Amino acid sequence: MSGSGKTERRKAAAAKAPVRAVIEAVMPAVDGGRFPIKRVLGEEVVVEADCFADGHDELACLLLYRNDSDAAWESVPMIALGNDRWRAAFTVERIGVYRYTVTAWVDAFLSWRHDFARRVDAEDLLVAAQLGAALIDGVASRAKAGAKRRLAAWAKRLRREQDPAALATLGLDEDLFSLAKEYPDRSFAATHPVELSVRVDRDRARYSTWYELFPRSFGPATGAHGTFKDCGAVLPYVAAMGFDVLYFPPIHPIGRGRRKGPNNSLIASAGDVGSPWAIGALEGGHTAVHPALGTLADFRELIKLAGEHGLEVALDIAFQCAPDHPWVKEHPEWFRWRPDGTVQYAENPPKKYQDIYPFNFDCGEWQDLWNALEDVFLFWIGEGVRIFRVDNPHTKPFAFWEWLIARVCRDYPDVIFLAEAFTRPKIMHRLAKLGFSQSYTYFTWRNTKHELTEYFTELAHDPSREYFRPNCWPNTPDILNEYLQVGGRPAFMARVVLAATLSANYGIYGPAFELMEHIPREPGSEEYRDSEKYQLRHWDLSRTDSLADFIGRINRARRDNSALQQDWSLRFFAVDNEQLICYAKTSAGLDSVFDNIVVVVVNLDPWHTQSGWVDIDLSALGMEKDSTYQMHDLLTDARYLWHGRRNFVQLDPARTPAHVLRLRRRVKSEHAFDYFA
Amino acid sequence: MSGSGKTERRKAAAAKAPVRAVIEAVMPAVDGGRFPIKRVLGEEVVVEADCFADGHDELACLLLYRNDSDAAWESVPMIALGNDRWRAAFTVERIGVYRYTVTAWVDAFLSWRHDFARRVDAEDLLVAAQLGAALIDGVASRAKAGAKRRLAAWAKRLRREQDPAALATLGLDEDLFSLAKEYPDRSFAATHPVELSVRVDRDRARYSTWYELFPRSFGPATGAHGTFKDCGAVLPYVAAMGFDVLYFPPIHPIGRGRRKGPNNSLIASAGDVGSPWAIGALEGGHTAVHPALGTLADFRELIKLAGEHGLEVALDIAFQCAPDHPWVKEHPEWFRWRPDGTVQYAENPPKKYQDIYPFNFDCGEWQDLWNALEDVFLFWIGEGVRIFRVDNPHTKPFAFWEWLIARVCRDYPDVIFLAEAFTRPKIMHRLAKLGFSQSYTYFTWRNTKHELTEYFTELAHDPSREYFRPNCWPNTPDILNEYLQVGGRPAFMARVVLAATLSANYGIYGPAFELMEHIPREPGSEEYRDSEKYQLRHWDLSRTDSLADFIGRINRARRDNSALQQDWSLRFFAVDNEQLICYAKTSAGLDSVFDNIVVVVVNLDPWHTQSGWVDIDLSALGMEKDSTYQMHDLLTDARYLWHGRRNFVQLDPARTPAHVLRLRRRVKSEHAFDYFA
Repeated sequence: MSGSGKTERRKAAAAKAPVRAVIEAVMPAVDGGRFPIKRVLGEEVVVEADCFADGHDELACLLLYRNDSDAAWESVPMIALGNDRWRAAFTVERIGVYRYTVTAWVDAFLSWRHDFARRVDAEDLLVAAQLGAALIDGVASRAKAGAKRRLAAWAKRLRREQDPAALATLGLDEDLFSLAKEYPDRSFAATHPVELSVRVDRDRARYSTWYELFPRSFGPATGAHGTFKDCGAVLPYVAAMGFDVLYFPPIHPIGRGRRKGPNNSLIASAGDVGSPWAIGALEGGHTAVHPALGTLADFRELIKLAGEHGLEVALDIAFQCAPDHPWVKEHPEWFRWRPDGTVQYAENPPKKYQDIYPFNFDCGEWQDLWNALEDVFLFWIGEGVRIFRVDNPHTKPFAFWEWLIARVCRDYPDVIFLAEAFTRPKIMHRLAKLGFSQSYTYFTWRNTKHELTEYFTELAHDPSREYFRPNCWPNTPDILNEYLQVGGRPAFMARVVLAATLSANYGIYGPAFELMEHIPREPGSEEYRDSEKYQLRHWDLSRTDSLADFIGRINRARRDNSALQQDWSLRFFAVDNEQLICYAKTSAGLDSVFDNIVVVVVNLDPWHTQSGWVDIDLSALGMEKDSTYQMHDLLTDARYLWHGRRNFVQLDPARTPAHVLRLRRRVKSEHAFDYFA
Repeated sequence: MSGSGKTERRKAAAAKAPVRAVIEAVMPAVDGGRFPIKRVLGEEVVVEADCFADGHDELACLLLYRNDSDAAWESVPMIALGNDRWRAAFTVERIGVYRYTVTAWVDAFLSWRHDFARRVDAEDLLVAAQLGAALIDGVASRAKAGAKRRLAAWAKRLRREQDPAALATLGLDEDLFSLAKEYPDRSFAATHPVELSVRVDRDRARYSTWYELFPRSFGPATGAHGTFKDCGAVLPYVAAMGFDVLYFPPIHPIGRGRRKGPNNSLIASAGDVGSPWAIGALEGGHTAVHPALGTLADFRELIKLAGEHGLEVALDIAFQCAPDHPWVKEHPEWFRWRPDGTVQYAENPPKKYQDIYPFNFDCGEWQDLWNALEDVFLFWIGEGVRIFRVDNPHTKPFAFWEWLIARVCRDYPDVIFLAEAFTRPKIMHRLAKLGFSQSYTYFTWRNTKHELTEYFTELAHDPSREYFRPNCWPNTPDILNEYLQVGGRPAFMARVVLAATLSANYGIYGPAFELMEHIPREPGSEEYRDSEKYQLRHWDLSRTDSLADFIGRINRARRDNSALQQDWSLRFFAVDNEQLICYAKTSAGLDSVFDNIVVVVVNLDPWHTQSGWVDIDLSALGMEKDSTYQMHDLLTDARYLWHGRRNFVQLDPARTPAHVLRLRRRVKSEHAFDYFA
């Protein structure tokens, strides 16, 4: 062997024997622990790992976890599932960050007991008892006073006892066994080298119901610019529909340079109000309020009022500047100037924002810029805002968002960030990994049974669910999907039922939605004609054909049924009709008996009545295969008696294109009749 | 914001802007790079990664690789596959270890060109040209003399040119573009933080054909103990069958204490030879040769002779001691002694080895023990052995094998280790990950079409194929599978065809196999009756019913067809008969046209003639869907004309239960007739 080999041998001569236990494939973990998984307060983290060792000795495994602010680990024994897979779980009880990992070791005492139990020959038993006594002395040396005495006594009796039968019983004493198990020898434990982490948010990060509106559209009369005060009057209306997040597009002064006119026209006339996303003017920038909306004081008042209606106000953070944003003069170094003295306007192909300058995040003074942008968040947090919808985060560096969200959440762990990134899958996933609490999705463009089934199966069951929390929108000010353009009222009803029941987080852009605004700017466009993005609108909220009441019933169903407040339990069921989609959600908890089960059936055809046989997987719902149960429609309050797997459904889009069915089990009673719980 | 926040801001104030490119999911990688992937000389390593950045700029990605002994990286540009996935490949040209990783950056020059190509407005073009000129000056500053001049000139012309049309052409000049691409600005490149590695073995690690025999059974007459010299006479017989590895069970002195008698009886009589795995006696231990076999000189002579017959000798390394192994007295500290002064014998449940002491790898003097065991390998390497079959590696610590294999391979990278670990999947995989070149498999117990299809699909296509190289054995001295016990000659023929064509590495334990030894020690046992493990046997190699010739034809087919020399191209095809299994292998190379295609059909029913229609996926084989082709049976030399997907097959087990078909394409010729290549 080579000389260097010899040296290594000498070098090694001090070390203790390497540990024998091996730990692999610890789950859940995002990119090997580079990013945290996500949970909300009170949820469980179920951890699994492959743990094994050479030979045939017994292994012991512990799940270790701690709140980031605690130094000491808590531990839970892991249970062997077979095939060397082990599992344990812990519950997160504080918002912020928890850490977890796995430790395992070859346990000499457990191995001895396993071996002792198989001894038959009397002489063997005596020898094994001596070995056991020595091990138990070791256990005693680690034990607390009381236990120490009992264990030492046990060892002593094992040494003394000569009668094989008595010895066998003594060696396998259950009580002493469980006592000894409390003091294992972990000096040769292997511990997974990565401390995995879980980001714990408040409940609203997992379950939220958003309503987006343009405050300026709620003036007293057509053409009058609405104010925060005017918005106060709308709060009861929004609250009555059962929303809990009220989201405003940017509320800042709007640039005059290159301001856009109605329908995104490049030339604006004097009276045009411009796009709220063209942020900044003489009156101020990202920390100012548009004078026509009122004052900061008015805004704070509105937040307070909204709170009294159970509504939390969310702001839109769009990091970009109109040409007359104060920063353009104060910090020209934050923008990328072209030789002709202009700044190339922002783009998000195919969209062009001629009225907007992007920031140059790589500029020499990038740190000042990043700090200034952080201060924008801190300013609005100071005003009482805790939910931010971030505009086009995918056109700003990932490193910026990871830095910013970490800093904000360290001091304000209750802040929720929604990523408005309609872009390529891996980019959307990266933003979710690095810290965004919720993400916009492709839902708006998933309309057929196949598209919906495939996409929501991915969202609910792929490993990415550990960090990607979908927030589904049937419409936004930027997206009027063709299904809504052509499908009429039934299309709007179907889409809001799908969003609200497929996803625990969803929102609508109103009143355009409940008033079924459906005319595109031009054929083939997804833009609204006369969009509020570029002009004032005035809405008649009292219209008799409004979907406000229907939406209210859906949101009430969400509030009353925990099954609809999370995403992971989603299961699709077969229907023998391609226009009918059927799925169920169950309340969290072990896959035994669920205390809340909701089954949804939607007719995706807005033009024709469709009927078919649904195939309910009762065992997946923890029910007897041939049981009879009641289906209570939470939209119409109708009740149906269903039996077994196959049941008939018919939905007339002209009336209600969907069933949202609360499944009620039949409960045997001591009386002559049964009832449904 | 908190005070600590402020501090961080100041601390940050020196750094340069974080890189914008992101790299994820670099493949292949075993446990995130903790273990190397495996290749043999001349093979390709195809690397893929997700690479992307924020915004809409152009990205450039490079695959970096180097031989472990080189300091500098080589690089290959990666190609975008869509969905932000990139791919490139490199070839390993030296045995040992290579490293590879991925680097990516937002490329300002590429982004500029992409943007420039979309400019239409004349004024825009002029401005863009100025921007481009500046970037190209930057490129020039990194370029070599000649290139530097051409690029600088290009920049100059871009600044001067005023005619939009001419400018557009000039800016998009293809030659200058490719020249500029050679000098990218990588100062803001992101590089995957893990240097992944690939262990490169010689070709025999991927493709080998093993024959195991007990030298002592080849004495001149029944009852006479065979010697190495006697084995010399068997070499032509083994070579004629087309094997290239000749593997001997342990050749060391055999213990007398607790020696076992015929059929594993606990009491041996005077004449009994004992088990070769009960290693060590007065004559010596792991570095000694059993006197009855001859001397070390005889052994070296046999290795030389074997080499002349194209046979490489492999030794069995079994780390355990008979009670009278010299080490037991010299190094009592290496064993675990019980209070009664005995050592608990070795076990590998359900097997009990009453004649064997295991080592205590965790003993205080573990380093001396580990070094002594390494010296055993180094000793036999010194004698010219380069292939080791390791006995029960899973009953010794993983850390020991990882340490040992790394040390041996550093000085002797041509050494091949075969792991004889018939145990749980994750343990077998761990041993393969930590360095064993080949692994025994569950093949011996996979007999039905479903079992074989499922298992070999996993072996050929799961990510574990990157490190787990199967070596399949129809029988071993420890395993006489019930299929061979009851199936007679056709069962032996079917099993050797399956092993030889499903796996590039396979072996048989002979002459027991070709002479169809099939009587178990007792009903329900997988042990051979009168096993060579415990007594001398004498074989009649000239028996007319021997399968030697049949096996020779199979091994010739393996030698002549590169398709059978690797595992990854395996594809199963449907047959409308559960007793017929059909699969194909193709030569390596891109999935276009394969220069070698072998299709195998086996009748798994050893009792009845079976027939059915096979469904050949021609497109998967790179062939036209309705082509006519010739199937040349390499076992019988028969030739069949097949057409399209569905073809009829009938196999009579009493004759030959298998087709090994070389697919010959019809080649158009300028003559009137076609021929088959």
